[in-house]
Amino acid sequence: MHLDQIQSPEDIKNLSDEELKNLAQEIRERLIDTVADRGGHLASNLGIVELTLAIHRVFDMPRDRIIFDVGHQSYVHKLLTGRVRQFHTLRTFGGISGFPKIGESSYDAFETGHASTAISAALGMARARDYLGEDYQVIALVGDGALTGGMCYEAINDAGSSGTRMIIILNDNEMSIAPNVGALSRHLTDIRISKGWSSAKKTVRTGLEKVPLIGHGLYKVVHTVKMIVKHAVIGEDFFETLGFHYFGPIDGYDIPALEKTLKRAKEYDGPVLIHVLTTKGHGYEKAEEQPEHFHGVAPFYVETGDAKERQDLPSFGQVMAEELTVICERNPKITAISAAMVSGTGLSILKARFPERVLDVGIAEEHATTMAAGLAAGGMKPYFAVYASFFQRAYDQVIHDVCMQNWPVTFLLDRAGLSAHDGETHHGVFYLAQLLPVPDMTVLVPRDLNELRQMIRFSEHFEKPLAIAYGRSSILLEDYPCTSFCLGKWETIVEGKDLAILAVGSMVREAIAVAKILLERGISARVVNCSSVKPMDEELLREISGMPVITMEEHVLAGGFGSAVETWYAQEELQVSTLAFGIPDMFVQHGSRGKLLKYLGLLPEQMATRISVFLGSLHGVKRNDG
Amino acid sequence: MHLDQIQSPEDIKNLSDEELKNLAQEIRERLIDTVADRGGHLASNLGIVELTLAIHRVFDMPRDRIIFDVGHQSYVHKLLTGRVRQFHTLRTFGGISGFPKIGESSYDAFETGHASTAISAALGMARARDYLGEDYQVIALVGDGALTGGMCYEAINDAGSSGTRMIIILNDNEMSIAPNVGALSRHLTDIRISKGWSSAKKTVRTGLEKVPLIGHGLYKVVHTVKMIVKHAVIGEDFFETLGFHYFGPIDGYDIPALEKTLKRAKEYDGPVLIHVLTTKGHGYEKAEEQPEHFHGVAPFYVETGDAKERQDLPSFGQVMAEELTVICERNPKITAISAAMVSGTGLSILKARFPERVLDVGIAEEHATTMAAGLAAGGMKPYFAVYASFFQRAYDQVIHDVCMQNWPVTFLLDRAGLSAHDGETHHGVFYLAQLLPVPDMTVLVPRDLNELRQMIRFSEHFEKPLAIAYGRSSILLEDYPCTSFCLGKWETIVEGKDLAILAVGSMVREAIAVAKILLERGISARVVNCSSVKPMDEELLREISGMPVITMEEHVLAGGFGSAVETWYAQEELQVSTLAFGIPDMFVQHGSRGKLLKYLGLLPEQMATRISVFLGSLHGVKRNDG
Repeated sequence: MHLDQIQSPEDIKNLSDEELKNLAQEIRERLIDTVADRGGHLASNLGIVELTLAIHRVFDMPRDRIIFDVGHQSYVHKLLTGRVRQFHTLRTFGGISGFPKIGESSYDAFETGHASTAISAALGMARARDYLGEDYQVIALVGDGALTGGMCYEAINDAGSSGTRMIIILNDNEMSIAPNVGALSRHLTDIRISKGWSSAKKTVRTGLEKVPLIGHGLYKVVHTVKMIVKHAVIGEDFFETLGFHYFGPIDGYDIPALEKTLKRAKEYDGPVLIHVLTTKGHGYEKAEEQPEHFHGVAPFYVETGDAKERQDLPSFGQVMAEELTVICERNPKITAISAAMVSGTGLSILKARFPERVLDVGIAEEHATTMAAGLAAGGMKPYFAVYASFFQRAYDQVIHDVCMQNWPVTFLLDRAGLSAHDGETHHGVFYLAQLLPVPDMTVLVPRDLNELRQMIRFSEHFEKPLAIAYGRSSILLEDYPCTSFCLGKWETIVEGKDLAILAVGSMVREAIAVAKILLERGISARVVNCSSVKPMDEELLREISGMPVITMEEHVLAGGFGSAVETWYAQEELQVSTLAFGIPDMFVQHGSRGKLLKYLGLLPEQMATRISVFLGSLHGVKRNDG
Repeated sequence: MHLDQIQSPEDIKNLSDEELKNLAQEIRERLIDTVADRGGHLASNLGIVELTLAIHRVFDMPRDRIIFDVGHQSYVHKLLTGRVRQFHTLRTFGGISGFPKIGESSYDAFETGHASTAISAALGMARARDYLGEDYQVIALVGDGALTGGMCYEAINDAGSSGTRMIIILNDNEMSIAPNVGALSRHLTDIRISKGWSSAKKTVRTGLEKVPLIGHGLYKVVHTVKMIVKHAVIGEDFFETLGFHYFGPIDGYDIPALEKTLKRAKEYDGPVLIHVLTTKGHGYEKAEEQPEHFHGVAPFYVETGDAKERQDLPSFGQVMAEELTVICERNPKITAISAAMVSGTGLSILKARFPERVLDVGIAEEHATTMAAGLAAGGMKPYFAVYASFFQRAYDQVIHDVCMQNWPVTFLLDRAGLSAHDGETHHGVFYLAQLLPVPDMTVLVPRDLNELRQMIRFSEHFEKPLAIAYGRSSILLEDYPCTSFCLGKWETIVEGKDLAILAVGSMVREAIAVAKILLERGISARVVNCSSVKPMDEELLREISGMPVITMEEHVLAGGFGSAVETWYAQEELQVSTLAFGIPDMFVQHGSRGKLLKYLGLLPEQMATRISVFLGSLHGVKRNDG
């Protein structure tokens, strides 16, 4: 049985050990080849080939249901559930998604993308099954990294107390995107290294070291004895306290052992947690050596592991971190916070120079935000670097813990705008809607790397809540050098008299291109860089109110920049003809940035044409008679 | 030393046991009298009189810092920190807040209102202290209810692994707002009832009952032995696994014992958790008997505990629950979810009839939302009833887990709009900004109780994400009977020809009052109930576009309904003169609804006057020439 012959999980149920081994090898090769070609999440998928095979052999999908937490580790599942032939289209526009998608297959029971949601969703499904008197199993496959997210705990706490029949498979690879943090992670490591009593000896030593010097001899002895006894049964404590039946730890590459445990769990009438040990990148040396690099990777050469396309420009995150490092040299109050994204956000640069100034709190955006408020309350000047779409997790904390108390926390929102190949769950296209209505919040979006540098410098002495948002693709407008950034002031980049284009962030570059096209058609457009989104430049808004005003943003239209401009004109009772470019009221799929912009009508040629039509319609401004 | 003589915590440091006892009694009387007069949070404050005294005697505030999780249990702290004389102004406009406020006192180190934030904030402060080389203690006082929130776990996980010096005081009163839920809560109860080995016997039995019938005799035995050993040391397992040093449980009314433990904790160089046992309402029989009722209570007679003002109308939540109960009778797919607010949201009515249909998941809005999505994915029709301001916690889950997958989850948002005496943290004035930009979301706001009934009936067969939002104050517009609710259609309540008032929810009643005032001034206003906020009634919007359009909403203006109307007109290229009433870009303090509306210029007389001026300015529509 070869991989290409597999049409459904039924096809792997009767394979021999030898056949399974060969299949696993074939799957690994396919994963490496496809991701080398298309980019994507490699290390996590290589790590769970055998585990995915075992799951599909023991369970009866799609009657039984599996939810992949975060979802980027569902590639093997996709290969086994009728999507082998389309797999080469991975992450391309119209092709297979890099995450579970219900529309793609009935084997995808629930869609994921952000971390720590699977246990909640699985518990809901399991409860629905019980309400409706149906009979199937629900499995949540969760990494140890995702387990640092509070949602997991909320769900485990609820499931453990309700006693609902469900299975959590804890895929413990000792790291999520970056090496894992948190006390629970250390506990899992304890389990890993323990073989029954053998760990107890080490623990006694640790326990003795931990005893506080409070002078109570008896307490000391009692405490130490307790530690010995307790750690003798290490492993079950934590999860059994929370009401789960614990199985493990189990070798994630021993298919018979995995199947045996899965079968026992399948029959258990209550919540079960199976602890499986795996290694990221398993079977591909390059990925095992650099699991963080091969977590999510751009197209690369299989032999060397090197990227196929070299980036000439640094990323926005790198530039941010460079500037922050410079500020750290002179300002002892600067700290940076990451939610398990030290490398992805560029903060590894700062960490290399000032390791103690970077706090990685795990996949915990809510805690990160309120902890930042606490740091500010204690006199520090904290920066929280986070992907824009993950920052949605901290909506309440931004309002309640930062802005309501006006703490000087700076949010550095990476991946603002379209996140291209990752798709729906990762596009950062709600951040303005999230932040603009919040009192005392200032929002900046640089037009290019140099303006970001200026904003980071500006932020050092800005003593209020601040957000600076930038995209995934680097931009440097070399023909338009940055003049100094000034809060509440917009920069006219191209002069023009027939209309004004107000552009935010990445769209400044597109606006310049639009203006060039329009000029060829005899239309003179003024291009304005609106990098200070809140507060806006009211003087400039008033100045241009005699001409048609076009807005451009890589953001949903509702609650975005264009909407803010239109609302401002309405409130000022200025009758201005406006046209807003942005993302309509829909979720946008995955694909290359160019393909997505074209799909949304946001390529310069498309926008120029629509503006021409718009201007034509303005000859004699309409006024509806009701 | 009498309560009125206390100007700072210094004044209680040298009191004798007898004096302390008398002071505690005096504090209880003051709490009861003031809350009987002003309304507020009573039971939780009565429960921690002695604990608060002990904390202020052992620590050196405001150098040391205390953060009250949720914050409604800070009344005793306020009485001891220079606010005795103003305490009678509790929760009134311009008076003392019912929550910690930095602007009120230097003893209030961090502001709270929503649950589960204190440990994060305290960890941030403690880290700031260490960064800056300062020396003080940071305490988070957290109830066992708040501990069901995932943020607490994220913070404990981070603090436990970093080893930062800080103290968590777990105020365990076996209930938060409602009797507590969750596996951890059960664990705390185990600790409560256990006195060393005495609990082990019970545990053995429980352990034996729990053993699965898998036929492995040896496993059974081993498992049981482990359970015995493990529970012998119950108490420390959970928190020590997470890296905290555990002290407890301690009687919350034994001041010497509390002080002794606090002193030990104060000197401990690492994270400490002190487990204190208290009872809600301690010392006031009525409150001890009905802690849930006296959690947050309206003004009442001290002798009887009865409310001073009888409500003639049921609350919106009660009406919602009544309707949902009717639907449950015939539809087995209905379930309701609460985040520790079964009573507050009205769901207790449904629970009385169908206990198994109401799921209380603890203070866990994120989990509640994604679990609801899981229920829907499993074929159920879930309703999540939650206060609008707490629903901010689920911003990402609404986008990522509900709307992106288009699951038919209904959100019932209570306390939408101003929440009056609770103030900033509790006003639900961001919910439209939160929901309107989200694709596939439908948003309804009823004008009164009867329209809410219709909406709940409508929701039963609506197979998409839906939010229905309603306020704290009941409204029944008896002179304007409800015609049948229709999605995307607005109801003209008063006809008029000079201008149109588009009003949302509670503002429909105010709009009718405005129209009456305007009519006296010779202006004929059409009043439109815009209960279908998304989708809007585009036909009606177009129909009225020839007249001035006024919008009214109990919501921030940015990202709200008025903004949506203005944006729609701009996008349709219809030049319409608009005027938007709502909440400007600021946080609104506490006070009576009337006082707050007046402060915001939203009383009918105020709005009518502003509309008259606006109409005057429209004679000759301005068009700016730039």
